Amino acid sequence: MIKTSFKNSNIEKEIKDFNLARVKEVHDMIENKTGEGSDFLGWVNWPVDFDKNELSDMKKVAEELRSKINILLVVGIGGSYLGARAADEMIRGLYPNDKVELIYIGNTISSTYTKQVLNYVKDKEFGIVNVSKSGTTTEPGIAFRVFEKLLIDLKGKEIARERIVAVTDKEKGALKQLATAEGYETFTIPDDIGGRFSVFTPVGIFPLLVAGVDVDAIFSGAKKAMEDTKNIDNEAYKYAVARHILHTERGYKAETLVGYELQMQTFTEWWKQLFGESEGKDGKGLFPTSCVFSTDLHSLGQFIQEGTKNVLFETIIDVKNPTMDLNVPKNTEDLDGLNYLTSKTFHEINKVALEGVVDAHANTGEVPNIVLEFDKMDGEMFGYAAYWFMKSCAMSGYLLEINPFNQPGVEVYKTNMFKLLKKPGF
Amino acid sequence: MIKTSFKNSNIEKEIKDFNLARVKEVHDMIENKTGEGSDFLGWVNWPVDFDKNELSDMKKVAEELRSKINILLVVGIGGSYLGARAADEMIRGLYPNDKVELIYIGNTISSTYTKQVLNYVKDKEFGIVNVSKSGTTTEPGIAFRVFEKLLIDLKGKEIARERIVAVTDKEKGALKQLATAEGYETFTIPDDIGGRFSVFTPVGIFPLLVAGVDVDAIFSGAKKAMEDTKNIDNEAYKYAVARHILHTERGYKAETLVGYELQMQTFTEWWKQLFGESEGKDGKGLFPTSCVFSTDLHSLGQFIQEGTKNVLFETIIDVKNPTMDLNVPKNTEDLDGLNYLTSKTFHEINKVALEGVVDAHANTGEVPNIVLEFDKMDGEMFGYAAYWFMKSCAMSGYLLEINPFNQPGVEVYKTNMFKLLKKPGF
Repeated sequence: MIKTSFKNSNIEKEIKDFNLARVKEVHDMIENKTGEGSDFLGWVNWPVDFDKNELSDMKKVAEELRSKINILLVVGIGGSYLGARAADEMIRGLYPNDKVELIYIGNTISSTYTKQVLNYVKDKEFGIVNVSKSGTTTEPGIAFRVFEKLLIDLKGKEIARERIVAVTDKEKGALKQLATAEGYETFTIPDDIGGRFSVFTPVGIFPLLVAGVDVDAIFSGAKKAMEDTKNIDNEAYKYAVARHILHTERGYKAETLVGYELQMQTFTEWWKQLFGESEGKDGKGLFPTSCVFSTDLHSLGQFIQEGTKNVLFETIIDVKNPTMDLNVPKNTEDLDGLNYLTSKTFHEINKVALEGVVDAHANTGEVPNIVLEFDKMDGEMFGYAAYWFMKSCAMSGYLLEINPFNQPGVEVYKTNMFKLLKKPGF
Repeated sequence: MIKTSFKNSNIEKEIKDFNLARVKEVHDMIENKTGEGSDFLGWVNWPVDFDKNELSDMKKVAEELRSKINILLVVGIGGSYLGARAADEMIRGLYPNDKVELIYIGNTISSTYTKQVLNYVKDKEFGIVNVSKSGTTTEPGIAFRVFEKLLIDLKGKEIARERIVAVTDKEKGALKQLATAEGYETFTIPDDIGGRFSVFTPVGIFPLLVAGVDVDAIFSGAKKAMEDTKNIDNEAYKYAVARHILHTERGYKAETLVGYELQMQTFTEWWKQLFGESEGKDGKGLFPTSCVFSTDLHSLGQFIQEGTKNVLFETIIDVKNPTMDLNVPKNTEDLDGLNYLTSKTFHEINKVALEGVVDAHANTGEVPNIVLEFDKMDGEMFGYAAYWFMKSCAMSGYLLEINPFNQPGVEVYKTNMFKLLKKPGF
């Protein structure tokens, strides 16, 4: 369901010639959990191994909650919200015709944002899902305090209890303790799946259920991707090898993931975390960035076309079938000269734009382009694509000879901050 | 009103030693309009030269429109929407408590986005401002056709006429012709100000007036920045020289502009266009990217802290006074261990996070950090900052020995696209 192709990068031969034995070795490290960080490979077989009873419990709780609220506040930072948000926007779009709106808090310490959200929700029917393994992370921790208090102040403890759900550790940690003490429903973040690989666990699935998304389709897509990557000759590894060659052999420093649909923007943010946090260590890794075209052709297009070369290459998401489409209306006067487009739909024009841009950037601009063809933007495609990128990332990270599953560098700023804030123990 | 400082980049001495004669030469090129692209320097004295009668006409039309609608559709791509959006979000925030919502269309060919917006607005009271010099650009052109037709179909020609405004060329072009034929109110895009420098012209000002923003404060801030940069010893040029040294002498390839406030995100997008389109030519220029912290510390933080070095440096927007603030509620149990923060406001914690991150990235991670101190996030600050960056950009572009005011590379994809679409004449 994802087809990979390469434009003017003359890389296909190099991919074919790439050390297959090494790919096989890494593949076995992933499948047999023998590499560094292998304690965090629970996601590999999760699309078949996940707890079906928990899914059915989540469906019940989500349906009940959905009937009571119009806004779900998703509290979480990094992998605790990016997967759900990426899936929700990709699948439902940016102006979904649905009763429940998701709003993300606790991914920032911005006082203005937090206060404005508070003012926005205070006279609406809202619920909260707090996603945190420990429950002690600063950003979601303080946001949860504010909104839990608001809900209790507005509705009382009993109604608040029906509207607050925790996705957290199975048995330990502050959030688990708090949820038990207050009687909040809880679902589990598995011990062997890190944040950026967690979208198929309750971390991603529970908010999506409340949003009314078909999560069975997501699991079905993920399972298909899992099957398609059980063999080493697959498109996900081809993508991993291509970016490895561009980075380590040709010296590219940055990759930009490009969507032609605004609803794919958070998907590209999710991808940035996946690759940036997995590979950016030991002085290695591509700097992951993202664009939305044709929007950004009128901002970054000039730089990509004619600016500094050999810095970035582009990976393009080419969606074949849009969720909705519409025609360009005919205009008798044709003052704008656009009547020649009235036989085409917006999506047909968008596809032609993509084709013209790939040619302009890859051939005229000499920027290597990798094109990833997606069928559509539904739950199945999200599940497929998310799993596909995770598997690519594991391959790509191990090829770089780093541990793709830790994130030691994230602690540095936290420790500094705790010292400055005089947190007990720092 | 912007203070520039440098963390662990040992660059202050180099800035002092930088060729002052060259800075003076470029400064004179800008002020006296003697450099390449000088036909597009109308923005330099615009904060005092702008047409006061046009502003007062815009205020009347905007007030009238504001009384009739709840949604203003802003049709435009690149510089035709980024400035207004950057200002609106910075000043009003992301959940403004105001009757008029701005929605941006015509900056994408996405069929799903366009159709979803159509469904969202069709039973609401909306108006349209179409921002285009020519009126023939594909993206805004086809979007305007769709929404103009929708408004006429829903309300009839007469009401549509009261709710559609064009910001376009003074006398020529398709949009001017169309507006004259249909009786739409028009305001002028000056001939000597390019899209990315146009936020203080009706391009930015008219939508902001409809949004209820205090544009007099914006002009007042811009005028202050204009005065502060009439002398070569100023903070804007210091920033320009610093990034020039980091790029051309130290070999950095990318700059990331970092905000700690979600409402500054589109401001960083506006900045990306300003610098990317101005400098990305002749194989030169820094790749402009952006982040929101602490949000992205849980995605890109790892890469910045420990990934590939000597690729990117960071420029941090440090906002001293937030628009709103709130406290961390006390919790008797303190299960999450966050009671130690209850004596602080969110903004105080956010400021400490910034301090801890700058230290972590600049000192531990060896990533050069430029810190730009902003007083606040109101109209005056927006005006000051937008002008300040434009002036920096002109200096920085001329130092690179390119023409900062053209964008020849943007045409390549358009020509390809027109050929593929069989546009008459291509």
